[in-house]
Amino acid sequence: MTRILGIDPGLHITGWGVVDFDGFRLKHVAHGTIVSKTSEEIANRLAYIFKNLSDVIEKYAPNETSIEKVFVNINPESSLKLGMARGVALCVSSLMGLSVFEYTPNKIKKTVVGSGHATKDQISIMIQKLLNCGSVKLDAADALAIAVCHAHHRNALKYCA
Amino acid sequence: MTRILGIDPGLHITGWGVVDFDGFRLKHVAHGTIVSKTSEEIANRLAYIFKNLSDVIEKYAPNETSIEKVFVNINPESSLKLGMARGVALCVSSLMGLSVFEYTPNKIKKTVVGSGHATKDQISIMIQKLLNCGSVKLDAADALAIAVCHAHHRNALKYCA
Repeated sequence: MTRILGIDPGLHITGWGVVDFDGFRLKHVAHGTIVSKTSEEIANRLAYIFKNLSDVIEKYAPNETSIEKVFVNINPESSLKLGMARGVALCVSSLMGLSVFEYTPNKIKKTVVGSGHATKDQISIMIQKLLNCGSVKLDAADALAIAVCHAHHRNALKYCA
Repeated sequence: MTRILGIDPGLHITGWGVVDFDGFRLKHVAHGTIVSKTSEEIANRLAYIFKNLSDVIEKYAPNETSIEKVFVNINPESSLKLGMARGVALCVSSLMGLSVFEYTPNKIKKTVVGSGHATKDQISIMIQKLLNCGSVKLDAADALAIAVCHAHHRNALKYCA
């Protein structure tokens, strides 16, 4: 059994989702969002994301982190902000002993919805069906989708081996 | 007396420098570079930067962090990498209770060398003269310059108050 933490990092909103995968079945464990106050200093916002992700990892004890590979065709200022939040998410995962896996947005959408151009709403609907977990906010749904993508990819790797 | 930690973050090389400032005089305390292996996973490299900066903060117990405000006119991929290292530096500073101050590259160069267009070599030479600290690698010299810039700025603020 593998417990996977999917993270959708953002300086303002970081989505997270935890799923269990036994090689055949997926089971929803928990999900949530970490919202940092825009009125706070950036260093404190990043520390807030770090502490909350640490708490999630301590509480649910996942083995692996799955995270989105980032688009680079956005503007440099957005890249910098996203980079800071992403850096914190990767750092806390490694510090707490989780292996980290990265997937392109296209691969995540294709795995979960079947199309690389799926909307956030489509992802959310599909995640709720797949995991039977009731209503999920978009950012947390994205994080669950990232975790589900890794579960599928792990499995595929296993059968190829 | 204020002890200032200057940080010049980078995914490959993070420079750091510690100076003491009593309101009039600057004193060199220590400096160094944290070099992460390019062969390692990014998450592990970020965790390595986090741990080494934590060690520096524990060892020298600075009160304030000074860090460069980042150019945004570089390409998005560089911004993303720099953002990740910068996010970790800001995060660890806040987690360990340091106040964080940011300065533009132009202001740092102008404060230390007298010109906003100073080269890295000029900064290094001026830092060695100002702090009487012998030979300093360029990345550590930049970090010391960032710390010195904050010392001067603090002082100016004090006299304006």
